[in-house]
Amino acid sequence: MTNSSRYDILFEQVKIGPVTAPNRFYQVPHCNGMGHRFPRSLAKMRGIKAEGGWGVVCTEEVEIHPSSDITPFNQGRLWDDSDIPALQLMTDAVHEHGSLAGIELVYQGLAGKNHYSRLPTFGPTNASVMGGYPMQARAMNKRDIKQLRKWYRDAAIRSKKAGFDIVYTYAGHGLSILMHFLSRTHNDRTDEYGGSLENRARLLKEVLINTKEAVGDTCAVALRIAVDELLGKNGGGIQASAEGSDIIAMLAEIPDLWDVNISSWENDSQTSRFAKEGFQEEYTKHVKSLTSKPVVGVGRFTSPDTMVSQIRRGVLDLIGAARPSIADPFLPNKIKNDKLETIRECIGCNICVSSDNYAAPIRCTQNPTMGEEWRRN
Amino acid sequence: MTNSSRYDILFEQVKIGPVTAPNRFYQVPHCNGMGHRFPRSLAKMRGIKAEGGWGVVCTEEVEIHPSSDITPFNQGRLWDDSDIPALQLMTDAVHEHGSLAGIELVYQGLAGKNHYSRLPTFGPTNASVMGGYPMQARAMNKRDIKQLRKWYRDAAIRSKKAGFDIVYTYAGHGLSILMHFLSRTHNDRTDEYGGSLENRARLLKEVLINTKEAVGDTCAVALRIAVDELLGKNGGGIQASAEGSDIIAMLAEIPDLWDVNISSWENDSQTSRFAKEGFQEEYTKHVKSLTSKPVVGVGRFTSPDTMVSQIRRGVLDLIGAARPSIADPFLPNKIKNDKLETIRECIGCNICVSSDNYAAPIRCTQNPTMGEEWRRN
Repeated sequence: MTNSSRYDILFEQVKIGPVTAPNRFYQVPHCNGMGHRFPRSLAKMRGIKAEGGWGVVCTEEVEIHPSSDITPFNQGRLWDDSDIPALQLMTDAVHEHGSLAGIELVYQGLAGKNHYSRLPTFGPTNASVMGGYPMQARAMNKRDIKQLRKWYRDAAIRSKKAGFDIVYTYAGHGLSILMHFLSRTHNDRTDEYGGSLENRARLLKEVLINTKEAVGDTCAVALRIAVDELLGKNGGGIQASAEGSDIIAMLAEIPDLWDVNISSWENDSQTSRFAKEGFQEEYTKHVKSLTSKPVVGVGRFTSPDTMVSQIRRGVLDLIGAARPSIADPFLPNKIKNDKLETIRECIGCNICVSSDNYAAPIRCTQNPTMGEEWRRN
Repeated sequence: MTNSSRYDILFEQVKIGPVTAPNRFYQVPHCNGMGHRFPRSLAKMRGIKAEGGWGVVCTEEVEIHPSSDITPFNQGRLWDDSDIPALQLMTDAVHEHGSLAGIELVYQGLAGKNHYSRLPTFGPTNASVMGGYPMQARAMNKRDIKQLRKWYRDAAIRSKKAGFDIVYTYAGHGLSILMHFLSRTHNDRTDEYGGSLENRARLLKEVLINTKEAVGDTCAVALRIAVDELLGKNGGGIQASAEGSDIIAMLAEIPDLWDVNISSWENDSQTSRFAKEGFQEEYTKHVKSLTSKPVVGVGRFTSPDTMVSQIRRGVLDLIGAARPSIADPFLPNKIKNDKLETIRECIGCNICVSSDNYAAPIRCTQNPTMGEEWRRN
């Protein structure tokens, strides 16, 4: 058995709703310090991942409205039609290599501070915003919720116009208002959007269905969701063994794709010192038993044998990667072409994230050209 | 005696080298979170200060070369000719109201991290850069120094092209390589740029003279310098009672204007809780005895009587202000038009600076339109 046939399974197509991924290599959404500020740099970087064999290449968080702006971080922006051309640079670059382009729409709610727009921040409840800035979020009333659903819908339609194949509904990392509604910690509403899990999940479900109605004819609709917050039984967080599974069971067949990980970001992006390749399996392995839809998950995957094992054992359908695709955009092609010894493995140092925190284009200790693709051609 | 005649002295012209300030109200350089990123917002904000009666309106720090880029902070940028038009928006807006426009050129050296440009950082000595980012600055050799002097000279010429009337040489706040060379703490060179104060001041003096030679025919050349670092006798810092005065005596007649304050930024921008109006007088009052050139200094001045007293007692020639000009861009005109009761006084809360730290346009608790002048017209 040659390497190439041994890894053939990784290069099988995967149907995701109305679209088809050319293989199982899936670059999940990840920040990069470029976002709306450096659209050409960003498009080139994403395009190179497609060139390197990633069958799906996604954006970072993309703001859908100025009332949830993520300044000072350079994230994507889709506030109105004028933001479409910049995002189209990215979809064109990805499509050029036959890959699918995905967009992660976000409304940060309690995690947004609106330093640029200066608009009031919304949350499920009247509460301080996260992150230490002295600002108060206002509880959404029914009119606000209706408005927010429209903003999501408008953004989905604009995403389709910009050429995206996969449109995300995002409820992960503690960074989305949909997750804040879902959370017992952040949601103490007494109306039909608070209380039971069904009520707390109502807004998420509505947005998901609205997105499918708006663009589901030609776009796959993915749901990225936190299955565990690692806060333990009494910490008030989502647990894979409890509501983290219940919510998947509840929405099982609605999204075209489940993109699952653990929250918050620090848990999701653990360093190699403390977390081995595939470390999220214990939290995500049950997901496939709850849905017939394809599942993508992450775990700093760089070894093709580990990837194959994830597929064969029925843990995942698609091999999700953020950091490994940064350390080596050509990882899939290197596996395909039997050049395993040339793979640059992610060492989990997280300097990529430090760049994002400095609002500067992403860099990587293993891949010095990361973030420089456009500027240095 | 009417108010207006009592304050007449504040509206006297002041000759600064080849240019003349229309009055004594001088907006010293200050950051604003807009810089090169929001040039139209910035020009409008500076223009409104000129409209409000500030006779001199300066920029923030303006980077002269990509090897000292201040990402993630939104400062000015004058890397090459292509940056001139954006700065010209500002000089045009200031000139429209008959005021002078000043530019603060900066090369941050040890305080620069080059998150965007990724170029090596320079310092007087091989040393870690300031601010906790794991990066090493390289000691400048003679060729580097020659190159740096050229960068300063080129930037001065570009400043003149952009329409500036006053060009700064900056050695304040611990944020300029010229101050790092000057500092016993940062400079342990053994060549003619290290050792004695004369040697440590050599680069500063050279840049100052080069700037005068380059643009001094039509532009005033200002020297902004830290006279004290409040580190005490044994702290290794500059002291007004020691080298802080010696350096002024040494360069006394070279600049056309002395802009003096205390360092670092935290000392310069003290809050109202701990520092009264005019709090810098004890450190700057000796400057005028060392030079015949006009002197500008700051101290959160909002009271016209205090301002008049500073002039009459020979402490300052020009009333410098950053924060008071943010809280009330129309402060000079309100004094002129005898509307003292409508002055919005700076309360020293420093939320202006927090915006800069968030890389977002400046805001002010006393002046909600600050930073919004362009966007909301």
